[in-house]
Amino acid sequence: MRQTLTINTNLQKYTVTTESGLFKRLGNTLANLFPGKKIAVITDETVMSIYEEELRNQLDSADINWTLISLPPGEDSKSFHVLPDLYSKLLDFQLTRGDVILAFGGGVIGDIAGFTAATFLRGVSLIQVPTTLMAMVDASIGGKNGANLPEGRNLAGTFYQPQEVFIDPNFVRTLPDEIFEDGMAEVIKYGCVFDADLFSDLMDRASKNDGSGIESIIYRCCLIKKQIIELDCRDYGIAMLLNFGHTFGHCIEDYYPEGTYSHGEAVAIGMYTTALAGERAGLTAPNTATLLKKLLSAYELPYELPSDADIQKISETVKHDKKRRGNQLNLVLLEKIGKGFLYQIEKTEYADFIDYRIK
Amino acid sequence: MRQTLTINTNLQKYTVTTESGLFKRLGNTLANLFPGKKIAVITDETVMSIYEEELRNQLDSADINWTLISLPPGEDSKSFHVLPDLYSKLLDFQLTRGDVILAFGGGVIGDIAGFTAATFLRGVSLIQVPTTLMAMVDASIGGKNGANLPEGRNLAGTFYQPQEVFIDPNFVRTLPDEIFEDGMAEVIKYGCVFDADLFSDLMDRASKNDGSGIESIIYRCCLIKKQIIELDCRDYGIAMLLNFGHTFGHCIEDYYPEGTYSHGEAVAIGMYTTALAGERAGLTAPNTATLLKKLLSAYELPYELPSDADIQKISETVKHDKKRRGNQLNLVLLEKIGKGFLYQIEKTEYADFIDYRIK
Repeated sequence: MRQTLTINTNLQKYTVTTESGLFKRLGNTLANLFPGKKIAVITDETVMSIYEEELRNQLDSADINWTLISLPPGEDSKSFHVLPDLYSKLLDFQLTRGDVILAFGGGVIGDIAGFTAATFLRGVSLIQVPTTLMAMVDASIGGKNGANLPEGRNLAGTFYQPQEVFIDPNFVRTLPDEIFEDGMAEVIKYGCVFDADLFSDLMDRASKNDGSGIESIIYRCCLIKKQIIELDCRDYGIAMLLNFGHTFGHCIEDYYPEGTYSHGEAVAIGMYTTALAGERAGLTAPNTATLLKKLLSAYELPYELPSDADIQKISETVKHDKKRRGNQLNLVLLEKIGKGFLYQIEKTEYADFIDYRIK
Repeated sequence: MRQTLTINTNLQKYTVTTESGLFKRLGNTLANLFPGKKIAVITDETVMSIYEEELRNQLDSADINWTLISLPPGEDSKSFHVLPDLYSKLLDFQLTRGDVILAFGGGVIGDIAGFTAATFLRGVSLIQVPTTLMAMVDASIGGKNGANLPEGRNLAGTFYQPQEVFIDPNFVRTLPDEIFEDGMAEVIKYGCVFDADLFSDLMDRASKNDGSGIESIIYRCCLIKKQIIELDCRDYGIAMLLNFGHTFGHCIEDYYPEGTYSHGEAVAIGMYTTALAGERAGLTAPNTATLLKKLLSAYELPYELPSDADIQKISETVKHDKKRRGNQLNLVLLEKIGKGFLYQIEKTEYADFIDYRIK
């Protein structure tokens, strides 16, 4: 069933369409919405290894004038220094301001294609076609994009809303388990912070172990994200709650060698750790962390670091966070499952706060 | 006298303040508007050679936590590849999303500082303090920024509105004559396209040769620009009229070795040439070009190329314009002084249209 959400920020209005099988009609959909426009598809080699043939069929059979720009998979393709080459390829294709960039992939592709669309010729139209669960429920909506500098991730970027977001939940079926689970960490985050019903439905779904209902989960997450960004499209208020689990999660990603923990795994551990710390401080309802641990485990996500991990030391990396140079941290805590809140602490107090193993 | 204009685009609302002597109160003004914020001043060495001491006095005496990033003068400082170094300096200064970038200089500085503000940490506040007449009447308002790629100028860029624009007409008094005249070409453009009264007042002012009234000229141009960008903040409609003289002007800049003609000189010749071509085609009222020639001459601006210049060949460079890859050109013509309009022609017909020397 097609489910449409209209996102109405004070910057722009656009539609998020969620529909299983949408990809199999993408060519005609694009030809109808953008008649006569050129389309530059930015994607990665992993996505192409699965979907190149169908993509070509779709766009060629709809007589679209398009080109393919395929990047190596992984975070390096988001480096700022790849941009001149991307711009060059768009110029070679003679893409004009009236034309379209289509981001076809996960979060890395969505971010770098979004930044490119925002900055090429002072902005060209952007379509997001996310292929991972994480990109569907989070990155493809809201207009955040980013490029990595040598000093850190996403230090360059803009807010630039897409013109259309097309979500085909069928893509999720071809995802490797670990990529799917990564996305589930973000889904569980929505439940924790905004929606206790979603949290318990996720538990119910896991216990039945039938793999169904992913369309509805994606739709519910997009609906939550819509409500948030309509209130706060530039991350100054309620949208900061989307960072639940991410402060400590980023510490984990920064501390361990790349590849030790995926983003979703780091966030999962970050959420559980933060819930425990919140309980210890009397700010989070008792038993919250236990409920969270149960749900994370049900989706085969980790919830804690090895017992010999030095949480104090790991949490020190928060000081190197280039984006938060002030002395205050806006930490996201749970009041209980389904209700997050912002809690300001001094950066220097963070290690003692988060290290729940200290007695 | 302080003159305030509020710019109200559908993206943002901000104030343009024009006041002689404003720079001598800049420190307190900034401290009041942005209490406790860090300010990174991006400027160039030419501006610093004149104003560094006063700038330091202003910001230090107001107890502002600020840093100076001074670029070499000239177009090269707008290259895309300078950006990582700019971002690095902002990170070293620990500028956060709540802080401010202040562009202090002419068009090049306004463009690259604007692009930096738009893309650093997904956008920080931007203040424009233009020091050239051209930047005051054109570049500092409207939110256009740009960076140059190897393939051409301003091929990267965004629309990103400043939070404040502070115009001190006194800066104009220290400008070398040729830089002042460059700005007058853009002022005359406003008169040609939008405001016959401004055109005749400029003629009157030149004949009196007293150099007065520059404040009022700047204010009137800013008022025109305000009205245009409020209707069309992304250059899709009426704002394209601001390109009068620029199509052929850019051809001149592309054809001749750098430095042969300044931007203002190229635009001046572009305006006169386009007016003559319009008259020849019966689209522009007779005598328009003659009036324009008189006004350009009064401000010591050129109006035509040397008699042996091959206009056909020069106009060919329009085909290499990376931003206009379609087959159609949106040419700005004058119906008469004070009234411009858009005229579409095939790119291939441009040379014959513009070459008024062909009989």
